[in-house]
Amino acid sequence: MDKNFGGFKGILIIGLGLIGGSLALSLKKEGFKGKIYGFDLNKERIKTAEKIGAIDEGFSSFEEIPWEKIDLIVLATPVKTFLNIAKEIKPYLKEKTIITDVGSVKGELVKKLQDILKPFKFIGAHPIAGTEKEGVENAVVGLFKNKKLILTIENEDEDTKRLEELWTDLGSKVEVMDPELHDFVFASVSHLPHAVAFALVDSIISLSKETGLDLFLYPGAGFKDFTRIAASSPGVWKDIFLQNKKDVLHTIDEFINSMEKLKKYIEKEDEESLLKILEESREKRLSLE
Amino acid sequence: MDKNFGGFKGILIIGLGLIGGSLALSLKKEGFKGKIYGFDLNKERIKTAEKIGAIDEGFSSFEEIPWEKIDLIVLATPVKTFLNIAKEIKPYLKEKTIITDVGSVKGELVKKLQDILKPFKFIGAHPIAGTEKEGVENAVVGLFKNKKLILTIENEDEDTKRLEELWTDLGSKVEVMDPELHDFVFASVSHLPHAVAFALVDSIISLSKETGLDLFLYPGAGFKDFTRIAASSPGVWKDIFLQNKKDVLHTIDEFINSMEKLKKYIEKEDEESLLKILEESREKRLSLE
Repeated sequence: MDKNFGGFKGILIIGLGLIGGSLALSLKKEGFKGKIYGFDLNKERIKTAEKIGAIDEGFSSFEEIPWEKIDLIVLATPVKTFLNIAKEIKPYLKEKTIITDVGSVKGELVKKLQDILKPFKFIGAHPIAGTEKEGVENAVVGLFKNKKLILTIENEDEDTKRLEELWTDLGSKVEVMDPELHDFVFASVSHLPHAVAFALVDSIISLSKETGLDLFLYPGAGFKDFTRIAASSPGVWKDIFLQNKKDVLHTIDEFINSMEKLKKYIEKEDEESLLKILEESREKRLSLE
Repeated sequence: MDKNFGGFKGILIIGLGLIGGSLALSLKKEGFKGKIYGFDLNKERIKTAEKIGAIDEGFSSFEEIPWEKIDLIVLATPVKTFLNIAKEIKPYLKEKTIITDVGSVKGELVKKLQDILKPFKFIGAHPIAGTEKEGVENAVVGLFKNKKLILTIENEDEDTKRLEELWTDLGSKVEVMDPELHDFVFASVSHLPHAVAFALVDSIISLSKETGLDLFLYPGAGFKDFTRIAASSPGVWKDIFLQNKKDVLHTIDEFINSMEKLKKYIEKEDEESLLKILEESREKRLSLE
């Protein structure tokens, strides 16, 4: 069966980073028949996106964009820029254009975007995919295949179904979730682990200074895997931590509790409790395989 | 050039776990000409070790071992058993037998082992290699290839050179280090990351209970890699945390400091400090590739 990608004719992707670039490239390479337009302030990124065949045409100014040809807009810039971009593009939008995003933070932000963009429809979306690399130059065809795609909507309608079809045709497994719950879930399983990875590397920098020996010369088994995500974009993650501040702080507190618990068991040499916490964690982790 | 593996004729490996098993199997498959004897209380493991060709002969009782044929003994059981095993085997040892280990903790433990085993020589060794799996049934040929092997000795002599040759012939990169420093280094780059991985999974178990949703159904990008080492053996890691208690607690404190620092920056929305800590961590992490 031919893929229809929600029947969109012209898609504008704002922000040609890793996710926006991979979305554009995957659409082009996996059979999307319409046009893909790219917007990025960085002209090098536009050139790259054109060169690798991710977009049909790129722009660095909103004025130049052929808005009448666009029926779907995807916000793929850092989340903190979303509100300003929404305000800037609103005057240009043609009737029935749908706006969506690929950001990691929903909750309040989605409500604000919906208010700003009214009467146009904003539908929050979050592909659970990525690598620690940045930019369209690292775009991956099929990045979203077999990955979850969270739509943060309350009710399905024709528009949300079109967007769902687009992502399903890219191979994503679409799941609907309340925006507030979304932020708590991803604070726990994504934002917290990133914070932990950054903090772990930071503490080993401090320990290296303390001992006068570059401890990074001795990466033990698993250490590289474990800290790989600390190589993720500092700018992107600073914004995510701040945009999802409440939930991120809550999960950090919960994690520090777990760390203090482990510390207490080691201090008291409480073998039984120590073994129990390690066994429970192991069992839960193995269930992911 | 033929490999000589230090010229040993009979090697007894006590403990047929992942490391002991991989050492035995690698020696057999990579050209060691002498005999490999295995000791394990678990008779199934002995059968498996014989079946996969890791050992020539296996024993579950020290009395049955042909001690006169053994000139190298490798302790490959959990570190907390080392002192008792040293006491038990000492009466059997023939002149000039060398005792070594593959444990993750050195420091005080090495001194105690040297005292107990005198006049026999104990040489501490720690291969920086492993997987999160357990047991000789998961043994890997070549596990030590291109991996560091730390010898915790003060001076080289003929015996340490033989042991160095054995590991070099297995492809390891041998490095000499003071036992106390060894424990601090590996508390930082191995024990701490494992503690963090266990605590991270534990905190996500708590957060799941809090929200009534199984958060492990939403593993974000990098989460699996990041927590892979939480699937490591609880028994082994409980012992390592307790055996290297002082250094492990010290590195946990340093890590909690880093976590609290990150938390403070997020709370205060101190973008500059937040970006700085993320950038420094990223840069350091990238230098490992």
